[in-house]
Amino acid sequence: MKIRNTLYPLPRQGLLPDFIAGLVVAVMLVPQALAYAFLAGLPPEAGLFSSLLPLLAYAVLGSSPTLAVGPVAIISLMTLSSLHGIVSPDASDYHAYATLLAGMTGAWLFIFFAIGLGSWTSFISHSVISGFTSAAAIVIILSQLKYFTGLDMPRGGSGWSPAAFTVEHWREIALWPLITALAGVALLTFWQKFIPAVTARFALPDALRTLANRAGPLVLVTTGTLLVLVLNPPLATVGAVPSGFPALSLPAITDLDWQALVIPSGVLALIIFLESLSISNTMAREQTNRIRPNQELLALGTANVAAAISHAMPVAGGFGRSMVMQSAGALSQWAAIFTFVFMTLVCLIAGSWFQHLPHAALGALIVVATWPLFRWRDGLNAWNFQRSDGIVWLTTFALVIVVDAESGIIAGVAVSLVIYLRRTSQPHIAEIGRLPRTQQFRNVLRHSVETIPGVTLIRVDENLYFANSDYLIDYVLERVARRPDIRHVVLVGTAINHIDYCGLEALELLNSRLKERSVVLHLAEFKGPVMDQLSKTHLAEKIRPGQVFFTISDAMSALGHSIPEKSNDNYII
Amino acid sequence: MKIRNTLYPLPRQGLLPDFIAGLVVAVMLVPQALAYAFLAGLPPEAGLFSSLLPLLAYAVLGSSPTLAVGPVAIISLMTLSSLHGIVSPDASDYHAYATLLAGMTGAWLFIFFAIGLGSWTSFISHSVISGFTSAAAIVIILSQLKYFTGLDMPRGGSGWSPAAFTVEHWREIALWPLITALAGVALLTFWQKFIPAVTARFALPDALRTLANRAGPLVLVTTGTLLVLVLNPPLATVGAVPSGFPALSLPAITDLDWQALVIPSGVLALIIFLESLSISNTMAREQTNRIRPNQELLALGTANVAAAISHAMPVAGGFGRSMVMQSAGALSQWAAIFTFVFMTLVCLIAGSWFQHLPHAALGALIVVATWPLFRWRDGLNAWNFQRSDGIVWLTTFALVIVVDAESGIIAGVAVSLVIYLRRTSQPHIAEIGRLPRTQQFRNVLRHSVETIPGVTLIRVDENLYFANSDYLIDYVLERVARRPDIRHVVLVGTAINHIDYCGLEALELLNSRLKERSVVLHLAEFKGPVMDQLSKTHLAEKIRPGQVFFTISDAMSALGHSIPEKSNDNYII
Repeated sequence: MKIRNTLYPLPRQGLLPDFIAGLVVAVMLVPQALAYAFLAGLPPEAGLFSSLLPLLAYAVLGSSPTLAVGPVAIISLMTLSSLHGIVSPDASDYHAYATLLAGMTGAWLFIFFAIGLGSWTSFISHSVISGFTSAAAIVIILSQLKYFTGLDMPRGGSGWSPAAFTVEHWREIALWPLITALAGVALLTFWQKFIPAVTARFALPDALRTLANRAGPLVLVTTGTLLVLVLNPPLATVGAVPSGFPALSLPAITDLDWQALVIPSGVLALIIFLESLSISNTMAREQTNRIRPNQELLALGTANVAAAISHAMPVAGGFGRSMVMQSAGALSQWAAIFTFVFMTLVCLIAGSWFQHLPHAALGALIVVATWPLFRWRDGLNAWNFQRSDGIVWLTTFALVIVVDAESGIIAGVAVSLVIYLRRTSQPHIAEIGRLPRTQQFRNVLRHSVETIPGVTLIRVDENLYFANSDYLIDYVLERVARRPDIRHVVLVGTAINHIDYCGLEALELLNSRLKERSVVLHLAEFKGPVMDQLSKTHLAEKIRPGQVFFTISDAMSALGHSIPEKSNDNYII
Repeated sequence: MKIRNTLYPLPRQGLLPDFIAGLVVAVMLVPQALAYAFLAGLPPEAGLFSSLLPLLAYAVLGSSPTLAVGPVAIISLMTLSSLHGIVSPDASDYHAYATLLAGMTGAWLFIFFAIGLGSWTSFISHSVISGFTSAAAIVIILSQLKYFTGLDMPRGGSGWSPAAFTVEHWREIALWPLITALAGVALLTFWQKFIPAVTARFALPDALRTLANRAGPLVLVTTGTLLVLVLNPPLATVGAVPSGFPALSLPAITDLDWQALVIPSGVLALIIFLESLSISNTMAREQTNRIRPNQELLALGTANVAAAISHAMPVAGGFGRSMVMQSAGALSQWAAIFTFVFMTLVCLIAGSWFQHLPHAALGALIVVATWPLFRWRDGLNAWNFQRSDGIVWLTTFALVIVVDAESGIIAGVAVSLVIYLRRTSQPHIAEIGRLPRTQQFRNVLRHSVETIPGVTLIRVDENLYFANSDYLIDYVLERVARRPDIRHVVLVGTAINHIDYCGLEALELLNSRLKERSVVLHLAEFKGPVMDQLSKTHLAEKIRPGQVFFTISDAMSALGHSIPEKSNDNYII
């Protein structure tokens, strides 16, 4: 397979747009990196390191120009829950485990790449992904309660447990964290809503304007830090962040219980792929380029291996940052390379600046960044359009929150497939007739149409395959039994797109049953590909004197002349 | 649910035909009952008892007039393999376990009935059932090698192991059993082939003729017994069979490890149901009545419970006997009731007659009775029609022989579903045009058709659902990108039978993408049910100035007049 990346040829408009977009993303990424590291139960540098090499890896191998790879809320949360029960977040080698998890996740993505899993993802309905993301968003937001309330919660609690814990201990809620966090949420929301309107007033260069519009998180981080430095209130802070570029080394597999990570890393790999793919697909539709799922597997795999050799944590494409990267005008992954450069500078210089940053501020940041992922409207629309789609969304959503990510996704996929198959197994079958003075044929129940005495035109609105072939036979025989005047059954193939062996058997069987009742079976207007298939069989001979008509009109004019009673004798063969 | 059985009203032709058919089946059933009991590792009476109450139970509750319920080769074999590892066939309570297995299987069938499983069986492709039956036939025939060779084989060996064992110990093969068995096979085959021709010569009453034609097994049994009585050769024989009707009692659950049977009995129940259903469906097509799957679950469940309280073994519908019952002229389950009466007499009087019957003769009987179940031709035809159907058959066949029944069936079902979904996820999409001087529209690649400059008619030959909605978008956008002259895309719905939420999303997305490229999307000739669905949405407004045309012709005439360039301005909205 040929790898096509977005770095070369260079964008026609030059690299300036990518430079600006890269800077904007970096400004968002710094605080997010710290926040998501804590979300995963890791020290802040793990987040920063995840924002370095993985970006380069994806930039070189990825097929999306604007997918922003790096630390991601959902993946951080799943890192925490995957390691839960294997190693305690307080243990000294917890960081090493997270790094190994990234490496094994990368390995899984390579395996998926090798078996070409990329072309199978279409079986995962949007409702499943949306339901999963929404549930994950809720879980993430709940997980931040401990920074909002300052409560000392038991680690690794997921689902509703943080909420329950908070309700239980509401008396112990600390005022400072609560106020700081809520103020932070207010600040960020205000910034998102009003600053763009303000900056629009002034005649700023676009670059500066976008930068200002996206500076909310940075402002929050700065004010938060200043707050601590000036008032020194009772607030938990990030603490020392070692400066410098990560030392590159392979994770120490031998000292760790890597077998325990085989399954979790596989699940994580699948979710990293699905999330990233759904994001880059969403964006690709605004763009001209096409996402190549299998190449994505390779790129994301490499990104996670890069994370593993640089003491980072599992990475994926982030929804929020990708949207920003795109709206900030990125044209190619050069933007990501600039982000990488900025992040390197931050690591080398600015590490110590974060030490007084309060957790509450980061909590506010996560909540605001994650809220848009709760796509309850998707579920509602799906439900309104068709109960079954809503059920898929709800199943996934509920199971992800109550049980866990993998059960939710598996159940969602299973339900959606069963619903689809179920529907096709009892197809809509219509008796059709000709609209007066046209060559159009429609359902006799919906339109006033012409029919020929002794002839019934039956249109099956489904592919003929094992799950519905019996249904067709029963339907036709029943109808013929109810209307003894019928001498000709014309099966109309306009809606049959393919036919399997059971479908063929069904046609032959239907034919012989009809013959016994001295009724002739005809075929009309079957599609080219289906006729090709049938021509390999003896069906055409078997249905004689029944004929294969090119069009329904041919069938009607041919059968219109034959007088049922008379021609009847010919049929007992 | 209303139970409708075939006993009442009485057949118009009276009960004589059923009486004769019942007798014919009984004549076959006596030796088979003994043979299948041994196949299951049980004493002969277990087979006879399975031919009593279960028949009554099905007669009262069953919906098929000619399904012959009772001991069945495949089920006997599975009884043996289900109990393998739980209790040794030599153990004193082995019979009790087999009886309990029947009871729990009955319970499972009731559960299936309660959850309405009957309406889900259409998901099991004929290829799966045929592949399973064929593999089971092979396994059964191989299992008879021990009676053919007189070798003392290790119990519970399934799959190829008996064959391997025979090859290994070929030197120890005993001559008497081999000759007897082969002679038996010859006799039965000869009888099947030539006796009907002979009896046809003489002016016999039909009843007597059918009886004579089906008497082969009885003759074999008699000659076999005489052989032993006269020559007393070194042949293993059935031995004492206690006379009398079974004492009715509940299986002693408490003394047995019933938990170990939960899973095996569930699998057994499923297979009993599938086998019986496929048989009665096959026959139903020659008949006027319709099989009601859920009622069948109830009937088969009761039959197995009846087996459990009468010291019998699990029962199902038998292929061979059902075919005979039908061809012998049975009109209703009264035939089964008569069979029950004859079998009762046999149990009361004739038990002792079987004592000198050689196993070799029964082995011959099983082989001849089972051979027709090896439907290799099904597999071949499926393969020739479409590789994918052949693969399903082969997968099931291979796994049933190499691994076991359940894995084979599960794998078969999974493969067939995946193949179907896979196909629908990359649908056939055709650009169509009008056949000159008609209102017929066909694929531009297959026919020489008229098209309008700037307009492309695109027909999707598949339902629009989550697995293929992205595919459609990509296809259309790509096509529009390649042909910049296109100003109108008309999506033709003749082959779209239903649409899910992802499908709808896809249409809206496609519409907005096309608008950006100042191309208008139109819909034409969507089916009634689909239009009903879409009318619940705002799609119609969204695609304006695109229109929803009733027919393709309408679309062509409407768009034929608009000059692309000029009308172009209207599109940027």
